[in-house]
Amino acid sequence: MKIGILGSGSVGQAIATGLAEHGHEAKIGTRDPSKLKDFLAKAPKGISVGSFSEAAAFGEVIALATNWGGTENALKLAEAKNLDGKVLIDITNPLDFSKGVPGLAVSGANSAGESVQRWVPGAKVVKTLNIVNSNTMIHPQLQEGLPDMFVAGNDAGAKATVAGILKQFGWPEPVDLGHIEHARYLEALAMIWINIAIPTKTWSLAFKLLRK
Amino acid sequence: MKIGILGSGSVGQAIATGLAEHGHEAKIGTRDPSKLKDFLAKAPKGISVGSFSEAAAFGEVIALATNWGGTENALKLAEAKNLDGKVLIDITNPLDFSKGVPGLAVSGANSAGESVQRWVPGAKVVKTLNIVNSNTMIHPQLQEGLPDMFVAGNDAGAKATVAGILKQFGWPEPVDLGHIEHARYLEALAMIWINIAIPTKTWSLAFKLLRK
Repeated sequence: MKIGILGSGSVGQAIATGLAEHGHEAKIGTRDPSKLKDFLAKAPKGISVGSFSEAAAFGEVIALATNWGGTENALKLAEAKNLDGKVLIDITNPLDFSKGVPGLAVSGANSAGESVQRWVPGAKVVKTLNIVNSNTMIHPQLQEGLPDMFVAGNDAGAKATVAGILKQFGWPEPVDLGHIEHARYLEALAMIWINIAIPTKTWSLAFKLLRK
Repeated sequence: MKIGILGSGSVGQAIATGLAEHGHEAKIGTRDPSKLKDFLAKAPKGISVGSFSEAAAFGEVIALATNWGGTENALKLAEAKNLDGKVLIDITNPLDFSKGVPGLAVSGANSAGESVQRWVPGAKVVKTLNIVNSNTMIHPQLQEGLPDMFVAGNDAGAKATVAGILKQFGWPEPVDLGHIEHARYLEALAMIWINIAIPTKTWSLAFKLLRK
């Protein structure tokens, strides 16, 4: 599968690597391709770089891995025509760093996931993977066990596509939390992770749902 | 220890039972003591019933287990003078049932935990236990493992007192999420639990933090 990745930071790079490892082709969209020179030199085959628009046009599925402040603009640069009808995996967290320790930049009856869905109404947005560090997104098995991943989105077929990718990455069948409005809860869960990670300086944390 | 419980539903009854099992004395505060006749007939020793004010005056520690709609009034009936300086364990979830499937009645830069802290500024509010069903609050060990519990509150001593009670109930050392504003994240985590429990009809769910 061809996947366009919007965002070239650690999350975009981790997702591209995970996809390439599993035989997918990934094109990372960025404002500044020169930033990825070192990464590309060591990256597995199947990863290319382009503009946001080129990455979006390339992908059958899109992964959104931008910093929150740059998200709306990245989606504009990607162009609606390149996103329409496509599955868009939203990995963003709407972090507000203005007070030092991050808080949520989006609150109330809103979330990053819902904002993204409003900004690109033609895309099928699925919120997932935002609750773990980039180095836990692929091969999530931890010493203490295999964690769970959650998905939220309005389109059942899109969630099934994302579930397939997550399972390739090593996750169990993801837990479906319903429609995209429930991205609110996943973004809050990311804040639990972040609020544990900062004082303990341990970012490789994840959550397991105990079902019985 | 003497503990006053505000709220006489399944959560209040479970907490009272768990406390009595561990040698504490619990007084359940309710508007209608006659509702608890059947429960008291089978309950372990050490549980009594009274008004909200009597339960609050009785407790060295207070557990708040009201339905969200009745919470502010229950705290008024409990009277500030009976809550001042005391640890108040906030187990509430601010659920809005107006649309069928519950949503959060409190959102934005707010939470039930913060609301409770504002309503009784003299109490030391600790948010915890709101992310599991009443039958998982005591003896939380599930077949799939021992889940984790989280606490959020402004007073370190109060959180230590609550940690002691949680450990008696069978929880591991709880994970400290910081100040009471982070009740927002625990109330969102409750929504994840509820949104899994409703379609699967499985309420005995809990979360484990995998740390490495």
